[in-house]
Amino acid sequence: MESELIQWLRQRTDGHDSLALGIGDDGAILRWPADASLDANLGANLVMAADLLAEGTHFRLDELGPRRVGRKALAVNLSDMAAMAAQPVAATVSLLLPRQGAGRLARELFEGLIPLAEEFDVAIAGGDTNTWDGPLAIDVTVLGRLTPAGPLLRSTAQSGDRILVTGQLGGSILGRHANFQPRVAAAIQLRTEFSVQTGMDISDGLALDLSRLLAASEVGAVLDVDRIPIHADARRLAQQQPDGSDALSHALSDGEDFELLLTASPDIAAQLITSQPLDVPLTDVGEITVTPGLFQRKDGGASRPLQSRGYMHQAEGGHE
Amino acid sequence: MESELIQWLRQRTDGHDSLALGIGDDGAILRWPADASLDANLGANLVMAADLLAEGTHFRLDELGPRRVGRKALAVNLSDMAAMAAQPVAATVSLLLPRQGAGRLARELFEGLIPLAEEFDVAIAGGDTNTWDGPLAIDVTVLGRLTPAGPLLRSTAQSGDRILVTGQLGGSILGRHANFQPRVAAAIQLRTEFSVQTGMDISDGLALDLSRLLAASEVGAVLDVDRIPIHADARRLAQQQPDGSDALSHALSDGEDFELLLTASPDIAAQLITSQPLDVPLTDVGEITVTPGLFQRKDGGASRPLQSRGYMHQAEGGHE
Repeated sequence: MESELIQWLRQRTDGHDSLALGIGDDGAILRWPADASLDANLGANLVMAADLLAEGTHFRLDELGPRRVGRKALAVNLSDMAAMAAQPVAATVSLLLPRQGAGRLARELFEGLIPLAEEFDVAIAGGDTNTWDGPLAIDVTVLGRLTPAGPLLRSTAQSGDRILVTGQLGGSILGRHANFQPRVAAAIQLRTEFSVQTGMDISDGLALDLSRLLAASEVGAVLDVDRIPIHADARRLAQQQPDGSDALSHALSDGEDFELLLTASPDIAAQLITSQPLDVPLTDVGEITVTPGLFQRKDGGASRPLQSRGYMHQAEGGHE
Repeated sequence: MESELIQWLRQRTDGHDSLALGIGDDGAILRWPADASLDANLGANLVMAADLLAEGTHFRLDELGPRRVGRKALAVNLSDMAAMAAQPVAATVSLLLPRQGAGRLARELFEGLIPLAEEFDVAIAGGDTNTWDGPLAIDVTVLGRLTPAGPLLRSTAQSGDRILVTGQLGGSILGRHANFQPRVAAAIQLRTEFSVQTGMDISDGLALDLSRLLAASEVGAVLDVDRIPIHADARRLAQQQPDGSDALSHALSDGEDFELLLTASPDIAAQLITSQPLDVPLTDVGEITVTPGLFQRKDGGASRPLQSRGYMHQAEGGHE
């Protein structure tokens, strides 16, 4: 099984421009051309991130199916590249497979993953395949390349900045969590054409991820909650599920939107909101403040604290 | 637990020369300076590899202990860098932790891993930490940098080349598998000072790994089995275990030696054997042949086929 899988994968993944040597040796060799413009910065243009999805914790294999699991495992990593305004270049894919039917499962995971890799021009540069007496886990590490404009960071928000989000939020569990489009092009456009410097992706809910950005930048924020773009799925979920959460709560706290959360100066924000230059809508949802903490405001009224609830996989979290 | 772990890890891993931005954002940013000498080759100087270790398949946590598991998870990846003659630069570390005592286990894994990272000047560039209702798994992806001399490959062995190995082989299960020294310096020295072009690391036993090198190079080999450097552990194992394997069989077939397997022209090989320039012994163990297949010869006698048995984790294998 194993060497057959490697053969098959090799045929499916070779020939990428960045791959000087693909699958089959002890490592892949990648071209990483120099940027003359980055010399002053010692060539700090490589972004590296990893995200692991585990059966039972992050997905149910019987619900999602292996192809969508494979696609999602790469997609969440591409969203990390978007969060840094990096162009994804290459990925390694490590699999832990339940022993029963491992070969077939591995192929189906890759059948879901490879089309997304092709769509984003990402080279599959290897990885590791293992079987064991346990559930499925898939770990992807992705390399990306910054443009000469530099990265989007969490730590550069400034008091007075407007807070922007792409798309609509909430209710992704109804399906979008498995087929979302990583916002790579939008992030790079914002960084290069509009000098937006601050941003991240929304993976654990707007409120929780915004609170992380605020902590990294040592600032606070007021969200104008009546402006938050609530996804139709969030409204549907609020109607379907009698747990008392309204659609706004879903938009604030549901995980796996994988939209961008950004801050920009009022001038740039106004220009972006008016011109809507991206292939996804941008909405102004609030303001960065000197006062620490996360607050909400409705219809221009008084601010009151907003609990930064968000979606947390049980005891899960990245450490990038 | 989670954010505490990230804080702790951040303090333990920041400040590496290659890290322009460490743990704490959506990805790490690495400096990847250009090599003027590689322009003609489009800057193909980046090597990427991943290796995953899973409890029960690759180790028993109660036997090895978390620190040695952490060290080994990085060490096997550094051995892949040695196998390519690449200088390791950075790694991501993704963990799947059993829920019970996850925080403490994660720290102990890193307490074992970080000293080896420091010894080899490898930046910890992030990763992902998760808990679940399953056993421990640890996936490491490592980036390395080729010297201007280029890589060691599996595919460049030529008929007439001598076959060389570093160190002594066999019986690593008695302890060396957990504290081996990745042969990075030796590999780079062989590539840069002696123009050795062909090599890999011995992870699944000399016979099996050599058969992989032969397949990649489309050649055959004869091993002079009376010259194979048998480790004292292989002899001890042969005495201890009444399964009929003699010490030579252990040296040929035991996994996890993590020594280098190389081929070189007779001139260069003779020079290396005479001068012994490395910090580890080099031994000439046979010859590459036009005739495909792997053969053994004893005391200069006739060649007979050698079965390429080797250590295979149950249904396991890389796909780099």
